[in-house]
Amino acid sequence: MDGNNLNVGIVGLGTVGLSAIKMIEDNSNIVYQKTGKKINIIGISARDRKKDRGLSLDQYQWFDNPVEMLNLKHLDVLIELVGGSEGIALEIINKAFQLNCHVVTANKALVAESGIQLAKKAELNDVLFYFEAAVAGGIPIIKTIRESLCGNSIYSVTGILNGTCNYILSRMANSSMSFSEALNDAKLSGYAEDDPSFDIKGIDTAHKLSILSSLSFGSKPSLKDIYIEGIEDIAIDDFIFTKELGYQIKLLGITGIVQEKGNNKIFQRVYPSLVSNKGLFSSVDEARNAVVTDSSHAGRSLLDGLGAGGDPTASSVLSDLIDIAKGNKNYPFGIQSEKLKTLECIDIKQRKGSYYIRFKVIDRPGVFASIGQVFNENSISMENILQKHDEESDKKNIVIVTHKIEEVFFIKALDNLKEKDFVVSNPKFIRIEEV
Amino acid sequence: MDGNNLNVGIVGLGTVGLSAIKMIEDNSNIVYQKTGKKINIIGISARDRKKDRGLSLDQYQWFDNPVEMLNLKHLDVLIELVGGSEGIALEIINKAFQLNCHVVTANKALVAESGIQLAKKAELNDVLFYFEAAVAGGIPIIKTIRESLCGNSIYSVTGILNGTCNYILSRMANSSMSFSEALNDAKLSGYAEDDPSFDIKGIDTAHKLSILSSLSFGSKPSLKDIYIEGIEDIAIDDFIFTKELGYQIKLLGITGIVQEKGNNKIFQRVYPSLVSNKGLFSSVDEARNAVVTDSSHAGRSLLDGLGAGGDPTASSVLSDLIDIAKGNKNYPFGIQSEKLKTLECIDIKQRKGSYYIRFKVIDRPGVFASIGQVFNENSISMENILQKHDEESDKKNIVIVTHKIEEVFFIKALDNLKEKDFVVSNPKFIRIEEV
Repeated sequence: MDGNNLNVGIVGLGTVGLSAIKMIEDNSNIVYQKTGKKINIIGISARDRKKDRGLSLDQYQWFDNPVEMLNLKHLDVLIELVGGSEGIALEIINKAFQLNCHVVTANKALVAESGIQLAKKAELNDVLFYFEAAVAGGIPIIKTIRESLCGNSIYSVTGILNGTCNYILSRMANSSMSFSEALNDAKLSGYAEDDPSFDIKGIDTAHKLSILSSLSFGSKPSLKDIYIEGIEDIAIDDFIFTKELGYQIKLLGITGIVQEKGNNKIFQRVYPSLVSNKGLFSSVDEARNAVVTDSSHAGRSLLDGLGAGGDPTASSVLSDLIDIAKGNKNYPFGIQSEKLKTLECIDIKQRKGSYYIRFKVIDRPGVFASIGQVFNENSISMENILQKHDEESDKKNIVIVTHKIEEVFFIKALDNLKEKDFVVSNPKFIRIEEV
Repeated sequence: MDGNNLNVGIVGLGTVGLSAIKMIEDNSNIVYQKTGKKINIIGISARDRKKDRGLSLDQYQWFDNPVEMLNLKHLDVLIELVGGSEGIALEIINKAFQLNCHVVTANKALVAESGIQLAKKAELNDVLFYFEAAVAGGIPIIKTIRESLCGNSIYSVTGILNGTCNYILSRMANSSMSFSEALNDAKLSGYAEDDPSFDIKGIDTAHKLSILSSLSFGSKPSLKDIYIEGIEDIAIDDFIFTKELGYQIKLLGITGIVQEKGNNKIFQRVYPSLVSNKGLFSSVDEARNAVVTDSSHAGRSLLDGLGAGGDPTASSVLSDLIDIAKGNKNYPFGIQSEKLKTLECIDIKQRKGSYYIRFKVIDRPGVFASIGQVFNENSISMENILQKHDEESDKKNIVIVTHKIEEVFFIKALDNLKEKDFVVSNPKFIRIEEV
């Protein structure tokens, strides 16, 4: 940093990049007051110079090749907003560290997949590598875990981390749309991309979860150990029944640490879940994100806010920039990257919790007793049972909420149920989370 | 700081002090991993050395006089947990700054009343003055405003900032207790002090609000400009009617900034409020606290967590300590204290919002038309009207929810209403907040 200037170069001029430029332009006074530093954009780069971005960029030096931008004298910070876990994003960040340049990014895929190697390089070169914008948009969950909760032992982190999925599930719940109608609505409203599979299959949530997991438990981010289910199979019926039972359906990312025979093991899971209408996630609607942390001293805390979009994400980019301007140092993952451990992951089969299950049966005497027997034989007690006549057939819809049970036993009961001749639909289940 | 040590002295060994000591003892490894520093308690002080605190303190050097503790060689940080806006707390913090010692405190009254002078002194001596624990216990609202939202223009901050009041209101709502029964319950449960007037009259909330206001708007904390109402006059009837209307009652602290004729003016208000059952505060029950911020880029965000108690407050104390250990510097109030301004405060009469109003009337023809006329003459439109026969008399309870109106006009309508001979109880109103 030369004197009172923090010189930045921005690569990637999508929604977030443009919001970041406007925010830096509009709020330079605020930043100067708080840091004594002026943030100067000394270079910008994107694929297509000619594209109409609705914003005059003439005052900024343009680079067709972002790698060349890194050779700018006095460049302090590279802001990488290209996205993608490989290719140009990875290349320029690596190069920036070689040139002793700090890096701020919103790229969750890249941080999840190559974060450790990059953090090591940043630490080695004594530069900063910050990525608040990579998880939950404008919600400061990374800073909160890394700094505010940092004297705590963190036990678990549970989040609604994907705005697209939350928007779709909200539409299905509130406007009785089918999954494909809601997905279409999300595309039209700009909440879903043309190919939304990364979001709806839970991969994006898994990327973010692995980052939170690493920050919380000192583990190396690892995608391969994450159990992932998406939201494609949720039906309107599920919303009708869960509403009646006092629940909402949310796609959650859940990570936690447990002691098993003296060893620390973690779990990392992404799946649609039932959460109580009276719980902390009850008002997290539309494209909002929210994260609940459970920790030794601060207890249960909730952060809730805008999880995506240009302005909220730019707000997180700027908060990282301001930390750099102030000279505030943190290890990218909270502790020295060399000390991050590979922690054994607990299998989903070991999950202990309750379950919602829905299936169709033929309407004949003895069916209910037989269902009861299946659960009984597997030592599963039922908390709630709904039985509804299915209007389109002569069948009955059965919905059961179980008490807590280890997943391996629940699946066994489910298999037993499938074998019954009166069960005429594949039983569908959703896990219930207490949050 | 000598090498790898951060040496601290703790004054005040109440719940928070003892939790802080235990947390530093238990989590020294975590802190060392994150900061490369070891936190050493090199001195403790409290009024009564002999008191049984359920914790062995023999390994720490004891000082009957905390001022003497400050003369310890190598003392880096004074942790002030005595409380009180004057007396020994103010004296030792002043003295600590003279001796170039950092200060961490949980003392909201002191920060609200003398924060500016102390911040000036800290800045002059190039030491840090941190008080995350002073507002909302374990919720990192100060760090979030000061650092995460710091590139934003903040428009308003609304909080449930007092655990005692929230506990009492939750009891009244959920267990149909009267105010005095709920207060008694709060005392027995350890949530209210013997003399709870500071809490229930809204003073404690006002202290905290003034700190948040200063951090958000760069204004000097000023208690005298805060409009304050407590919760003593809330009746069980209000809970019954507001529940039917889809609201809860919470004591809120609300501060915001508005442009009026090119000047920035702020409002700072504390009063019991109606908030929607579907809103962000809907699940903030018992002694929890929560804060909503509205800002230019991050939009509307919520932080919700444990607002009081030893462990959550100690968690905030430790997060300040860790910032100091890392060498992370921030102005106590976000910007240089010399640049904090005295902003003109907007009168409560200028509040624009909706109102809940409840009163008793004699049951006779024409009453309703006459009420309608009063509101009509004052250009107030009504959103909701409830009319219930009062079981204990031959009177009727009338409850009205208005559309938005400036408070000065609402009060005029209220005065008109009082003059009517059929109105037999003093009309009681509660403001409605959209949060």
